[in-house]
Amino acid sequence: MKLLWTISTILLISSTVAGSNNGNTRLDMAAQRRASNIHRMDTIILLTYVSVMVLIVVTAWAFKHYRFRFIHESGVTLFYGLLIGFVIRYFGLGLLQSQTFDVITKNKTIVKEPPDYLMLEVKPEGGSRVSFHYELIEGFFADKRKKIEQQIEQKSVFSPEVFFNMLIPPIIFNAGYSLKKRHFFRNIGSILAIVFIGTTISCFGTGCLMFVFTSIFQMGYSFKELLFFGALISATDPVTIISVFNDMNVEADLFALIFGESALNDAVAIVLSEVIENFSTSSEAITLQDFGSAIAGFAGVFFGSLMLGFMIGCMNAFLTKMTLISEHALLESSLFVLISYISFLVAEVCGLTGIVSVLFCGIAQAHYTYNNLSDESQSNTKHFFHMVSFIMESFIFCYIGVSVFVTNNQRWSFSFLLFSLISITASRALFVYPLSWLLNIRRRPKIPKRYQHMILFAGLRGAMAFALAGRNTSTENRQMIFATTTAVVIVTVLVNGGLTSWMIDYLQIKHGKDAIEEGQRLENSMSSSPADQHSDLDESVPVTMSPGLNPWDKAFLPRKWYHFDASFMKPLLTHATPSLEQTLPPFCLPLTSLLTSSRQRAGETSSFDCE
Amino acid sequence: MKLLWTISTILLISSTVAGSNNGNTRLDMAAQRRASNIHRMDTIILLTYVSVMVLIVVTAWAFKHYRFRFIHESGVTLFYGLLIGFVIRYFGLGLLQSQTFDVITKNKTIVKEPPDYLMLEVKPEGGSRVSFHYELIEGFFADKRKKIEQQIEQKSVFSPEVFFNMLIPPIIFNAGYSLKKRHFFRNIGSILAIVFIGTTISCFGTGCLMFVFTSIFQMGYSFKELLFFGALISATDPVTIISVFNDMNVEADLFALIFGESALNDAVAIVLSEVIENFSTSSEAITLQDFGSAIAGFAGVFFGSLMLGFMIGCMNAFLTKMTLISEHALLESSLFVLISYISFLVAEVCGLTGIVSVLFCGIAQAHYTYNNLSDESQSNTKHFFHMVSFIMESFIFCYIGVSVFVTNNQRWSFSFLLFSLISITASRALFVYPLSWLLNIRRRPKIPKRYQHMILFAGLRGAMAFALAGRNTSTENRQMIFATTTAVVIVTVLVNGGLTSWMIDYLQIKHGKDAIEEGQRLENSMSSSPADQHSDLDESVPVTMSPGLNPWDKAFLPRKWYHFDASFMKPLLTHATPSLEQTLPPFCLPLTSLLTSSRQRAGETSSFDCE
Repeated sequence: MKLLWTISTILLISSTVAGSNNGNTRLDMAAQRRASNIHRMDTIILLTYVSVMVLIVVTAWAFKHYRFRFIHESGVTLFYGLLIGFVIRYFGLGLLQSQTFDVITKNKTIVKEPPDYLMLEVKPEGGSRVSFHYELIEGFFADKRKKIEQQIEQKSVFSPEVFFNMLIPPIIFNAGYSLKKRHFFRNIGSILAIVFIGTTISCFGTGCLMFVFTSIFQMGYSFKELLFFGALISATDPVTIISVFNDMNVEADLFALIFGESALNDAVAIVLSEVIENFSTSSEAITLQDFGSAIAGFAGVFFGSLMLGFMIGCMNAFLTKMTLISEHALLESSLFVLISYISFLVAEVCGLTGIVSVLFCGIAQAHYTYNNLSDESQSNTKHFFHMVSFIMESFIFCYIGVSVFVTNNQRWSFSFLLFSLISITASRALFVYPLSWLLNIRRRPKIPKRYQHMILFAGLRGAMAFALAGRNTSTENRQMIFATTTAVVIVTVLVNGGLTSWMIDYLQIKHGKDAIEEGQRLENSMSSSPADQHSDLDESVPVTMSPGLNPWDKAFLPRKWYHFDASFMKPLLTHATPSLEQTLPPFCLPLTSLLTSSRQRAGETSSFDCE
Repeated sequence: MKLLWTISTILLISSTVAGSNNGNTRLDMAAQRRASNIHRMDTIILLTYVSVMVLIVVTAWAFKHYRFRFIHESGVTLFYGLLIGFVIRYFGLGLLQSQTFDVITKNKTIVKEPPDYLMLEVKPEGGSRVSFHYELIEGFFADKRKKIEQQIEQKSVFSPEVFFNMLIPPIIFNAGYSLKKRHFFRNIGSILAIVFIGTTISCFGTGCLMFVFTSIFQMGYSFKELLFFGALISATDPVTIISVFNDMNVEADLFALIFGESALNDAVAIVLSEVIENFSTSSEAITLQDFGSAIAGFAGVFFGSLMLGFMIGCMNAFLTKMTLISEHALLESSLFVLISYISFLVAEVCGLTGIVSVLFCGIAQAHYTYNNLSDESQSNTKHFFHMVSFIMESFIFCYIGVSVFVTNNQRWSFSFLLFSLISITASRALFVYPLSWLLNIRRRPKIPKRYQHMILFAGLRGAMAFALAGRNTSTENRQMIFATTTAVVIVTVLVNGGLTSWMIDYLQIKHGKDAIEEGQRLENSMSSSPADQHSDLDESVPVTMSPGLNPWDKAFLPRKWYHFDASFMKPLLTHATPSLEQTLPPFCLPLTSLLTSSRQRAGETSSFDCE
């Protein structure tokens, strides 16, 4: 060993001397220094976030353990985030030392649009010129004295890409995968009405009210910008309210209405904001016809995404049914996770909405694929998505808090915030009460007044509004919209989220044991199978096929769907009996026998216990 | 509704007309277009990767199902990656259209080092000037005709940061968490010898041999660069070989030796390469003293990281023991995952090695924390890490394949590759045989010749070597080192990985039922508790405390550790009995009663069945 070292020492010395006329050494060292600086900064920031999340988990446990209910976890998370942001802003400035050059174009042309790349030549001492490429990370207004803060920002701020591609999909998928399907589908008509008509009214109502306010105070906003603000701020957030509702065991129908609205209106808000953005291209004259085609496109995108996600879910069900991959639980779970993610990506690539797609993929996976999985994978996937979505949610709320102090692409205006809070509440009231009145004409059971108040109150904003607002902050107005959205998220999560449990008591909404008993009683009077009202993943719709008293079950379309689902989809995609051989006419036999699994032939699972 | 639309249409038209003298609209649209372009590109690339991974999972299943053994999954994954890279390179060039400006500094100074940020003023038509910041993403040599490819590269190439901070830690943690502790610790002496002495010999051997080759052929490398190459290429990869061994049920001692080496030498390779890099600062004269201090620093970093990771694991065990968080499985699992990640980040921030830290955190978590977890969390965390590590591994191998065609920071040289393959094999032989001979002087059972051949053959390279080489590619020589490392990974995974099962048969290494029976027989003759030789997570060391015939158990240090573990660590950190009240002297009672859980008092778990 010693010999080896001696030799290598000599070699090292000689090579260092020989290499000193190599001009690129300096450049090499600079790159090395830069790489280790970036690594250090990245790990410090990651460590900060992860440590805060540990704190959040411990706090959440303490809150649950000591039954402390007046500040909710997301509120605490936001608060921690604000704290961290404050510390980074005012004490963390010395963390990063970096160099900034002012540059102009080589041939002195005036730059009219920000390009994607810049190329700068670097000439190391004694070496030859080399070119370095720079990619635009974030475009924003900047005055020089803020330079250091911006550099910290660029490190601790995620790109909206990470938000949309990485953090949001698991949360939404989990919402679909763990959906209480029975109550959701029973209220689907009302939910869709609230989601489509309600969100549209909310968007235009907020836009118009804000336009009136800003015109009066001459704040210089175009109507399009405010309509865009109205669209993105219409996305309500399921996280906080649903977790309170879950803890309190609130009445299932109210739960379904509020969950359904907040889970689905994200998608509507995305599509609306995209439609509004695209008006900019055909700028001068907008006719009603344009609006019509926008609405058609809007419906196309929504239902296209829905079908795509559902089909990808079914494809996975088919794959797991036919391949016996369930012998290898690891591969099976991985396949499940990857295919679920694909449903998001394919939709985005096709120009559809990934959120809608991944939500309905989750529903299809829970309805079909789940039954084909091995016991191990059933539990794995359920817990995997539950945990990932919990961690992502905590991260997002923490991040929203941090962003208030750290980002420089936010401009604060108290009056704008005040107007926004008034506008969003007013425009929410504008659809909740009239729409409930309209729905109550035909709906049984009716939506009582106390539900309507609760729906109004449950308009919390969260990750989706924040992410949509942060996507483009290139102008001052957009920066103010982003800041205001952040503030609205914080205010609604802290105030409405904190007061939810008090509000439930105040409105005399049944919860805890009362709600469960009430649910049971209703259930008994309405359907013959009380056993399946239990709220778990493996609930199913078809059980209600028995000619119950629920008006929804009597409607034409749902009845057709139940029939189709029970006699074609389930036998095709799962190991449920009766198999396709039994449900389809005999002339299909060659095909059906191909599509019937051995487990179906053995009839080991009955139609009910496999669900 | 119609009224609302009409009103908003009118408002929209008026505002568009009013806003047309707003000069920032153009800028706004450019930013919007850029955001959507980036999003589209990102999703396409993500979709490509995820689709390939679905294909990989299905292929892996088919291979397992049809017992096809001659190409291993990682080989197939690499191959798919190469295919995708080829397609992106030669057919995907039109995907991204972007604009690049050549820029010079404003005051015309010559730039000697690449700065961190560039600032460019943009003047939209009719608007006011605004400044845009550019951050350096990647510095590399570039000639103009390659421009488009580079832009695709920058999109489809991950920064080494993502590799080190996100992809590698779960893989290494899972290695520690699912470690077969019994055989690992029995062979710990030999493993540490191979890891420390072996990796160092391999590093310097490869460096010297390469220096001889490149000097003869005048390829212009400094000895430092080649030593750096030697260090990074010494990191062998556990993934492929271990999965083959697992499938074939290879003899446990050989398994432990090869797994131990490949899991731990990553850390040694990282530390070595960092030490070698840092020689550049004290460039001119290097004395043996410098080497000595480097070695001391090296040991300090290694054992510092080990202790840190172990302590963080113990901290989590203590936390889960004292807080009753196990009532909430979701919070518990999340805490477990987050704390495990923290062990990596804290080490990196402290200037230690995260990989070593996270590995030993995994071992501590498996040894202590695992026993405190609720049943649900036990299964969750095990499967979570198993699945995440599987997905990450597949991704990395796929990515290595893609990078061959897509990145431009690789320079290929066939002769350099050939020399490398010769050098790494020779320098591996240089430590395997002498070191085994040395170890066999004292070791019982000895390492037989066929094990030695297998250890030599099992020198596959993987993710860590690739990531280390890709960290800095600022000079031509480094680019060639990066390309060569990629090639070495591909060659060893395809050739050695593919031939592993054949080699096992050829060397007459026991596997399958033979190995299990052999293990049982040895076990029976050596220890009184054959029951626990079963290889699972919940194996434990202390059972071997019975005065067995294993010479390792008789050594002084291990015996002390067993005693300390059984009488202090386990009672302190888990719910195992005897509790601290029983194992510590009576005068500690006030403290010990504080640290004894009610489950320990009730004695519901005996020392053995809680493990």
